[in-house]
Amino acid sequence: MKNAPSPLSNIRIVLDHTSHPGNIGAAARALKTMGLQRLHLVEPRRFPHAEADALACDAKDVLQNAQVHTTLDEALTGCVFAAGLTARKRHMGHTCVDVREAAQRLMQIAATQEVALLFGNEAYGLSNDELSKCQLMISIPTDEAYTSLNVASAVQIMAYELRMAWLAAPQPTQAPIELARLDDIELFYKRLEETLIRIQFLDPNNPKRLMPRVRRLFARTVLEKEELNILMGMLKSINLNVK
Amino acid sequence: MKNAPSPLSNIRIVLDHTSHPGNIGAAARALKTMGLQRLHLVEPRRFPHAEADALACDAKDVLQNAQVHTTLDEALTGCVFAAGLTARKRHMGHTCVDVREAAQRLMQIAATQEVALLFGNEAYGLSNDELSKCQLMISIPTDEAYTSLNVASAVQIMAYELRMAWLAAPQPTQAPIELARLDDIELFYKRLEETLIRIQFLDPNNPKRLMPRVRRLFARTVLEKEELNILMGMLKSINLNVK
Repeated sequence: MKNAPSPLSNIRIVLDHTSHPGNIGAAARALKTMGLQRLHLVEPRRFPHAEADALACDAKDVLQNAQVHTTLDEALTGCVFAAGLTARKRHMGHTCVDVREAAQRLMQIAATQEVALLFGNEAYGLSNDELSKCQLMISIPTDEAYTSLNVASAVQIMAYELRMAWLAAPQPTQAPIELARLDDIELFYKRLEETLIRIQFLDPNNPKRLMPRVRRLFARTVLEKEELNILMGMLKSINLNVK
Repeated sequence: MKNAPSPLSNIRIVLDHTSHPGNIGAAARALKTMGLQRLHLVEPRRFPHAEADALACDAKDVLQNAQVHTTLDEALTGCVFAAGLTARKRHMGHTCVDVREAAQRLMQIAATQEVALLFGNEAYGLSNDELSKCQLMISIPTDEAYTSLNVASAVQIMAYELRMAWLAAPQPTQAPIELARLDDIELFYKRLEETLIRIQFLDPNNPKRLMPRVRRLFARTVLEKEELNILMGMLKSINLNVK
């Protein structure tokens, strides 16, 4: 069918603080059935684990190749776009999109660049801090009377929609714009925060919600690489010029 | 959002000869998150079972209300349309449709009448005999390198697409055509076969593939109630007139 290097291989699935190893195994199987391979785990409670292997069935290779990280930032390094699953319809002023729309957006970027898709812990999902690293929030339209979707089931639905989007996607016609890497954007936030403190715009003892708001603004724009270079240049100039 | 009696309540999910009780529980949870409730089990190997309860989480009510049957025909009684999941792209001359298209077709019928969605055993799926009772074959577009989707995951994807189709569906405007019930259609096949033997068109010792071909023909048409009455009338007349 489609033989070119698949955009699906530019998508990493990040399971964050997963409690049950069975869910990691079931997620691996879910991914592989849809042609996805790249699993990243942030601080899994138990991994590797026999139960993960059992539920992965013949997707044990996905588990064996899974990368384990101690921080979410580490798991996102090299990606230009991150999307996070949440049970909420709105979050911190972001409007959540549904899985189908999200899959189409992710697929466009994944045609040429690396993207990450984040799934939180079984009981409490992704934290505000973790969601603040995402440019897109995704909600699966569950029944209002019972919204408790299993995390591996959420992975299955998302992976299915990614595959459907990939199968339906036209071949890209124009050269894509190179987006900024998420790790470079994190560095920018760090430098910006330091700078804002230095210029006494931000009081570290009473930061209010300044940095989350800044993050939200830039998340919406989806920064390009050149734009980030410009912003970093601005910060450098500011720092050279303040006393 | 939508408050009218939901077409989702006209959809029964039939798990046929399921081996692992955990899959029944996970399927119950998958259904409930998408607003589906009606679970039918044909000869489950172990049910009720603690593992089913554990994986159902807060969807134990779906398990408690599940109906257990000894035959597939019994599970289909009262339905006018049955669709079966299969890993094959074509089956007995039927073209399989993908999950999204299937969900839209099912939702149209379920707006007013009862439909069934069949999922086979974990290892061997639905048998030819079971698939021959379906008017629609559905395949989930898995990766060719690894097609082994867990049965509860297949239920989850299908339930998700049904919910999406329901959320997107316009309100029905014209009175729907009343379809024939599947149990009445089975009776017709039985009478037809007897009649064909009686008129020596069908040799019971060498039936070839006559009845499967007949079934396929009528499955494609999706018989209306009045049409079935006509066919039954024809058979009755034939039988009254042969020596």
